[in-house]
Amino acid sequence: MPNPALLEAFETPSRTPFVIEHVSDEFTSVCPKTGQPDFGSITLRYQPAPAGTPASARGCVELKSLKLYYQSFRNEGIYYEAVSNRLRDDLVALLSPAWLQIITDWKGRGGIRSVIRADHGEVPPHFRGR
Amino acid sequence: MPNPALLEAFETPSRTPFVIEHVSDEFTSVCPKTGQPDFGSITLRYQPAPAGTPASARGCVELKSLKLYYQSFRNEGIYYEAVSNRLRDDLVALLSPAWLQIITDWKGRGGIRSVIRADHGEVPPHFRGR
Amino acid sequence: MPNPALLEAFETPSRTPFVIEHVSDEFTSVCPKTGQPDFGSITLRYQPAPAGTPASARGCVELKSLKLYYQSFRNEGIYYEAVSNRLRDDLVALLSPAWLQIITDWKGRGGIRSVIRADHGEVPPHFRGR
Amino acid sequence: MPNPALLEAFETPSRTPFVIEHVSDEFTSVCPKTGQPDFGSITLRYQPAPAGTPASARGCVELKSLKLYYQSFRNEGIYYEAVSNRLRDDLVALLSPAWLQIITDWKGRGGIRSVIRADHGEVPPHFRGR
Amino acid sequence: MPNPALLEAFETPSRTPFVIEHVSDEFTSVCPKTGQPDFGSITLRYQPAPAGTPASARGCVELKSLKLYYQSFRNEGIYYEAVSNRLRDDLVALLSPAWLQIITDWKGRGGIRSVIRADHGEVPPHFRGR
Amino acid sequence: MPNPALLEAFETPSRTPFVIEHVSDEFTSVCPKTGQPDFGSITLRYQPAPAGTPASARGCVELKSLKLYYQSFRNEGIYYEAVSNRLRDDLVALLSPAWLQIITDWKGRGGIRSVIRADHGEVPPHFRGR
Amino acid sequence: MPNPALLEAFETPSRTPFVIEHVSDEFTSVCPKTGQPDFGSITLRYQPAPAGTPASARGCVELKSLKLYYQSFRNEGIYYEAVSNRLRDDLVALLSPAWLQIITDWKGRGGIRSVIRADHGEVPPHFRGR
Amino acid sequence: MPNPALLEAFETPSRTPFVIEHVSDEFTSVCPKTGQPDFGSITLRYQPAPAGTPASARGCVELKSLKLYYQSFRNEGIYYEAVSNRLRDDLVALLSPAWLQIITDWKGRGGIRSVIRADHGEVPPHFRGR
Amino acid sequence: MPNPALLEAFETPSRTPFVIEHVSDEFTSVCPKTGQPDFGSITLRYQPAPAGTPASARGCVELKSLKLYYQSFRNEGIYYEAVSNRLRDDLVALLSPAWLQIITDWKGRGGIRSVIRADHGEVPPHFRGR
Amino acid sequence: MPNPALLEAFETPSRTPFVIEHVSDEFTSVCPKTGQPDFGSITLRYQPAPAGTPASARGCVELKSLKLYYQSFRNEGIYYEAVSNRLRDDLVALLSPAWLQIITDWKGRGGIRSVIRADHGEVPPHFRGR
Repeated sequence: MPNPALLEAFETPSRTPFVIEHVSDEFTSVCPKTGQPDFGSITLRYQPAPAGTPASARGCVELKSLKLYYQSFRNEGIYYEAVSNRLRDDLVALLSPAWLQIITDWKGRGGIRSVIRADHGEVPPHFRGR
Repeated sequence: MPNPALLEAFETPSRTPFVIEHVSDEFTSVCPKTGQPDFGSITLRYQPAPAGTPASARGCVELKSLKLYYQSFRNEGIYYEAVSNRLRDDLVALLSPAWLQIITDWKGRGGIRSVIRADHGEVPPHFRGR
Repeated sequence: MPNPALLEAFETPSRTPFVIEHVSDEFTSVCPKTGQPDFGSITLRYQPAPAGTPASARGCVELKSLKLYYQSFRNEGIYYEAVSNRLRDDLVALLSPAWLQIITDWKGRGGIRSVIRADHGEVPPHFRGR
Repeated sequence: MPNPALLEAFETPSRTPFVIEHVSDEFTSVCPKTGQPDFGSITLRYQPAPAGTPASARGCVELKSLKLYYQSFRNEGIYYEAVSNRLRDDLVALLSPAWLQIITDWKGRGGIRSVIRADHGEVPPHFRGR
Repeated sequence: MPNPALLEAFETPSRTPFVIEHVSDEFTSVCPKTGQPDFGSITLRYQPAPAGTPASARGCVELKSLKLYYQSFRNEGIYYEAVSNRLRDDLVALLSPAWLQIITDWKGRGGIRSVIRADHGEVPPHFRGR
Repeated sequence: MPNPALLEAFETPSRTPFVIEHVSDEFTSVCPKTGQPDFGSITLRYQPAPAGTPASARGCVELKSLKLYYQSFRNEGIYYEAVSNRLRDDLVALLSPAWLQIITDWKGRGGIRSVIRADHGEVPPHFRGR
Repeated sequence: MPNPALLEAFETPSRTPFVIEHVSDEFTSVCPKTGQPDFGSITLRYQPAPAGTPASARGCVELKSLKLYYQSFRNEGIYYEAVSNRLRDDLVALLSPAWLQIITDWKGRGGIRSVIRADHGEVPPHFRGR
Repeated sequence: MPNPALLEAFETPSRTPFVIEHVSDEFTSVCPKTGQPDFGSITLRYQPAPAGTPASARGCVELKSLKLYYQSFRNEGIYYEAVSNRLRDDLVALLSPAWLQIITDWKGRGGIRSVIRADHGEVPPHFRGR
Repeated sequence: MPNPALLEAFETPSRTPFVIEHVSDEFTSVCPKTGQPDFGSITLRYQPAPAGTPASARGCVELKSLKLYYQSFRNEGIYYEAVSNRLRDDLVALLSPAWLQIITDWKGRGGIRSVIRADHGEVPPHFRGR
Repeated sequence: MPNPALLEAFETPSRTPFVIEHVSDEFTSVCPKTGQPDFGSITLRYQPAPAGTPASARGCVELKSLKLYYQSFRNEGIYYEAVSNRLRDDLVALLSPAWLQIITDWKGRGGIRSVIRADHGEVPPHFRGR
């Protein structure tokens, strides 16, 4: 089941602000209503906590730990909206970022594809609708 | 015929604002003038009513009910513009969203493809032209 | 319901063999099991009966009549396989073609897309797998 | 020759502002200098006159009349720029829209492709560069 | 774990040979060596047993049962090659088809994407390399 | 109206057989039934008459003359099938080629796109279905 | 060598501001350092001088003259940056436009593709990054 | 430097012939003439030695060992043609396959992209030109 | 002007037959009739002379010399067909290949794109129509 | 190892501000943790120091020197984030640009693709999210 303890972080490597984006096309969880598997693509985008602040010590998420954390949803019954908000909340708790954005893009069910966007803080305008 | 009573809603799952998008490529209705079927793609995009407000109790549209509601247009004689405005009005009445956007994108008739955009409330600029 | 009487034909216009292909991206019928609409693309490909034979008098299908015939499946409960075989049989009965090929390509259901190919006569090898 | 009398309009169907887009990929006219045919794609985008105003009685262009109006350029000798300005002026005269945008996108001549954008009123920024 | 008992079949609906293709983009299993999830697309293509033969009574695989059978691999530790051969063998046992083809197309691991093709009987040449 | 006298030819420039292909995306004619314009793409593919034969003196079609010949269909009322057969016959009469192939690919009418293939002589198998 | 005297202009045809874009995919010059040919695509975008001003008399560039002007760079040894600035300066001198934008997009050299953007005046924001 | 000792193999898992394809988009070596790095995509396609033959005991290449073998070319000065023939020979020596095919597809140098195809044994026709 | 003396060759590096393909997207020459530049893409595909034969000593074309040879057409007035046959003849004279294929693919002139295919020897069927 | 001394610059060639973009699809370095090679695409975008200022004397990076500098990372063990910040810092030190932007886009590892954006100065909004 979803396990944020799998997440690891490392220190922000630069004093100049920058933006990190990780896209996973291999996310899967289970629909709690029908028991059918859901498949989606997850985009995580964030600006790490400014170097020199206490939060910067755990400012960037380690990539392999992110993969394992995503895999912990594999057999969890959970709705699209809940996945999106859960990912945002767990990663914000880990990273204390300047801002953070989660976009979950789900394969069709019943002929309807869905995209959920969940933000934290002031996501710059040029990233908002992407 | 179009039946908004088919629509069901559930409570907004998060206090942090987020955006939901559902795209159906399988919409069909009938041209009231020629009796010919029309085929289109419907994009619904909205920010649910803020959690903690009365409206949030019915803040998100349930996906299967949305599909059935769309199917209720199957044999209805109705113009592009009327479909677009009808979808917006029915969904706003159901959800009382912070904002909502309907984009209907129709296959060509007589060599002309059409797109109708109908908004409710303050759609953020980065979504307006998409 | 499916109505082959809607189909009209006209005489093969040339003594030299040639090949005709019509692709409709706007086919819809209904799943007889679930009552849900199905959406597909239909490719009809054939070589008309040789001019100068009795069959050539009705060798080519008239385009508007084909459209109306396809539309007669709109509210019919019928499986993918049955649609494909039905289309082939009705059109072969109408046209007595040298050969004829029906390819029905269906949008996904439960994450599975389907393609059915039904041939009549000796379809040339270069068209078979397309 | 170009004949705006072919254009018909109908009343704006909603009090809430919305945006209509019609794209024709089948426009052709003739180069007045060389006599060679030109081929282009025409995008018409506009916000109808607000319902409840006198202009709203003729706020939306009827689709078939638009097709016939476009066809009236078929054998006219006229430059790209003149087509674009003419389309805008004729449609603004018909519709009195809140704003209107014409984009003509022409196939290459001498290895150069051209796009002309002609606006009326305050086209929203998110549509301007599209 | 992989469960062929989930598979159901129905009678071949036509005496004329035809070809059925089902593509699932939502297959997942687990690497038995690393425990990491694998994601792939499965193409099943076959010509059903000729109608009128004993085998034709179970000549076509039912679509929903196929989906459930694929899902039974979700948490199974199994190699690419074994998945491909297993799918072919289970489906051949069910359907006794004239010929059958399985193509498994796997997302990259360590920068290498893989495709496995496993055939039964005389797959026509125009399908072999697809 | 269609005028084959516009076509010019020049001598085959090589004794070694080779293949020439010309694709025009700017063909237009008129539907004789509805008076509506049709738009299509024309592919002409042929192997010129072998150099050293009498036919080789007029073995290759001159490109500008081909363009003018195509333009002579602009206001002609003529069906898809007739265009395709007419083009083949006029060009075969001009060129006496080893083989020749015409493919006309038409934009949709009533939601149906059409492709007509008309051959002369032994078109090599690898070109037939293209 | 680059010859702006080849450029011709004509009067702005409308009092309403509009935007003209010409894209040539067939530009070539020579690298002054290596003598190797460079190949690029040139986008010219501008708003002609307002009709009614003295500058409007030469407000729009004539298309064939633009082609010949581009061709005058064919055997010139000149850097990417110099081409871009030269084109802008020559065209601004000719047209006195409200604003003008040159984008040169070059095929790769040593595995590196380059794009140079050179503006004149206040290019509207929606065109700047395109 | 290229090290075939890194390659590992495992036993052919099925008596029914099947085809395996591995595509790596991350191959790099060095041009022996210029010292510049080369980048390419490598496709390996083969039919393993028939199960039950001595060769089948080492019939399939292990995926991770293949990756490491490819990486051993990273700083090797070697031409396109030599890479292609070397890969084929090393893998044939390892696997004794029924047939095997190597396709190396290289990014452009000096504006020229290259593809080298090296076969072993009777590659089926439908794979040869791919 | 076209200069085959620029071409260099090296010895076939393998006794096993293999196929080499070089694609240049940066070919340009001049139309002898209009003086306008032509731009095309050149594909050269061949099987080198078998190693161990006298011809194999000059069996493969050196890549940089090929580029310079192509550049020698830059200011030559020459027709599409002549370029194609010239390239084939010069390269066959240099390489004495088992077979060789030239495909020249030209950007549009007057709305017509052209492809010329010129072969030497027995080009395998799977390459002929590509 | 990364060697900024390889970088060369030349003087800004114009007083009018302009923007330069170089995209390399052939960047490779090594993961310091696993020793596995990483492959990425690097976009460098900047506005050179204004001509006439002391910084403008070294305002533009020379293209070949940039290629060699990128190649100096080939066998360096370095993380994505460090590459991105290092490139920005080295190039800012060289060029003193008005603004500068580095985008590194990495091929997938463990099913996750990554993009890092590192800016210097006031990157215009229309470039920020690209």
